[in-house]
Amino acid sequence: MAGQRPVATLATVAEAAGVSRQTVSNALNSPELLRPDTLARVQEAIETLGYRPNRAARNLRTRASHLVGLRVEPALEGTASGLMDRFLHSLVETCRTADLHVLLFTAEDVNDPLDGYDGLLQSAAVDAFVVTDTYRGNPAASWLDQHQVPFVAFGRPWGEPTATHPWVDVDGHAGVAAAVDHLVDRGHRRIAWVGWQDTSFIGEDRRGGWLARMTERGLPTEGWELRGEDTVDYGRRAAHDLLDRAEAPTALLCVSDTVAMGALHALAERGIHPGPGGVGVVGFDDSLAAQLVTPGLTSLRQPLEQIGVEVVRLLKDRLELRTSDEPHVILSPELVVRGTT
Amino acid sequence: MAGQRPVATLATVAEAAGVSRQTVSNALNSPELLRPDTLARVQEAIETLGYRPNRAARNLRTRASHLVGLRVEPALEGTASGLMDRFLHSLVETCRTADLHVLLFTAEDVNDPLDGYDGLLQSAAVDAFVVTDTYRGNPAASWLDQHQVPFVAFGRPWGEPTATHPWVDVDGHAGVAAAVDHLVDRGHRRIAWVGWQDTSFIGEDRRGGWLARMTERGLPTEGWELRGEDTVDYGRRAAHDLLDRAEAPTALLCVSDTVAMGALHALAERGIHPGPGGVGVVGFDDSLAAQLVTPGLTSLRQPLEQIGVEVVRLLKDRLELRTSDEPHVILSPELVVRGTT
Repeated sequence: MAGQRPVATLATVAEAAGVSRQTVSNALNSPELLRPDTLARVQEAIETLGYRPNRAARNLRTRASHLVGLRVEPALEGTASGLMDRFLHSLVETCRTADLHVLLFTAEDVNDPLDGYDGLLQSAAVDAFVVTDTYRGNPAASWLDQHQVPFVAFGRPWGEPTATHPWVDVDGHAGVAAAVDHLVDRGHRRIAWVGWQDTSFIGEDRRGGWLARMTERGLPTEGWELRGEDTVDYGRRAAHDLLDRAEAPTALLCVSDTVAMGALHALAERGIHPGPGGVGVVGFDDSLAAQLVTPGLTSLRQPLEQIGVEVVRLLKDRLELRTSDEPHVILSPELVVRGTT
Repeated sequence: MAGQRPVATLATVAEAAGVSRQTVSNALNSPELLRPDTLARVQEAIETLGYRPNRAARNLRTRASHLVGLRVEPALEGTASGLMDRFLHSLVETCRTADLHVLLFTAEDVNDPLDGYDGLLQSAAVDAFVVTDTYRGNPAASWLDQHQVPFVAFGRPWGEPTATHPWVDVDGHAGVAAAVDHLVDRGHRRIAWVGWQDTSFIGEDRRGGWLARMTERGLPTEGWELRGEDTVDYGRRAAHDLLDRAEAPTALLCVSDTVAMGALHALAERGIHPGPGGVGVVGFDDSLAAQLVTPGLTSLRQPLEQIGVEVVRLLKDRLELRTSDEPHVILSPELVVRGTT
């Protein structure tokens, strides 16, 4: 900690090194102009005093705030996702290693997907954005792209095949297919899909993994699926509906942990044990709820730490005007097996 | 959205208003120097064009970055808290109304409670901090206080009665006392406390609410409490220990949702129904897990939205060098009653 001494300035560094302030400034901005021994003396004084150039002064010089904007949405109550904590920490941590900080903002009008971006850009408060609003098809991404603002999206530009901006996403299709394999290995054949509405691109991606792998395995899918919203209540009703049937499923593969938690409620109401010997349940997100519920919900874990690393790699490429080697990254979720299977 | 037009600058505003750039600058910084009709014309051009002074230029002038630093800690896996999402949104939202943004940073060394603050201060990257690390007795708060850095703490300076910095906290004592009343109203008399180690100030505050209210109600406390860490496994073992006794408790009042989730595991293992007719369970935090678990965990909800509002009020007082009316705020948590009671 350098905090016990007074804050170093250009002037105190100059005095300590026995040079002019202009020389210190040159040492920082045009070191090649200085004699090697002078440069070494100034650098030693900078090191000893713990001098950091004032950020606002540097910003004006470089036209860079070294800040990355991220719009935070209202935390949803009653849903299991809660991924933001993990993603935020990974992003902030990786940004630190790239000399960037994360600036959070909210929208005045949460229903306007573009609200908030414009003001930060016009006041040059941030150099770039990370866009995470993937559920609505990323209107902010299109807008930022049109305005040539550096940004990286967490989430694919679903339904916009011509979009070329960099993005990182999770392979829901592959994850759910792996969950089907897991359930089949456990002896299940009647595996129902408890999904979202077909207007959800992410929901359709995940459902595709169920449909494709079930078909590959020669297992029935026709009539073995339901669709609804991302609520505990929908998951509960869907599970009751499926388990009321004459030929009931032995496993419920759910599009999210929230829906899976509803399915667990239904099992409890029917006195059916989740897991081996009862009905298998799988969720998606590996939320805290999945980790904490009795007997532990098998779930697909999003690799949020790795997503943060890839997002920052692509951000740096954009900020340093480099062409990215892999501008579009799809990472596989990991199946975390717990008591419900 | 002003985004469809080119970014306004001092020059475009000057041209639109038919004045010099110096006049626009004066309109922003020393409006009293201008003739009222000129000022009105410049202000109209600023409004029409959506001009915002460059933030870095303003920062150099005002020596204010309008950023509030908040250190994010690694998200804990396997615990139910997950309060950060809700607190962050509230803080960012309230900051927006005060023309402040939140800058997130992480420590290089997570074990050093002071790591990260010094660098941001020395580079003038932030104007103030919010300190949320209340579990370790806020060493960052003492350091910031000594260095006369504006900051507000979420959490009391436990064990430092001489500390005078502004803070906002939650009344754990009152919350747990209300939970005792609730359980007694439901007919419980043997109410055990499943707490944390006595080295936790927060844990002792909450325990105090149980001890005081049980005593007031003439109910036994001697031998009716256990202590341990904030893990699901501890909660599970503690519940088994208490329920193995000849005279077992009818309700488990738990210091956190994480511990309460462990207690629910133990009940499931013993085939005991949580809630009326079985064993009552109460947690603390109103986490997503509490909301989602079957049959819903009764829990004390921290008023994080209100905490954000109070933190920003105190921050503004500090930044504007005002004496705060109420520099120390204690807010009561709200008991959210669900199936487990």
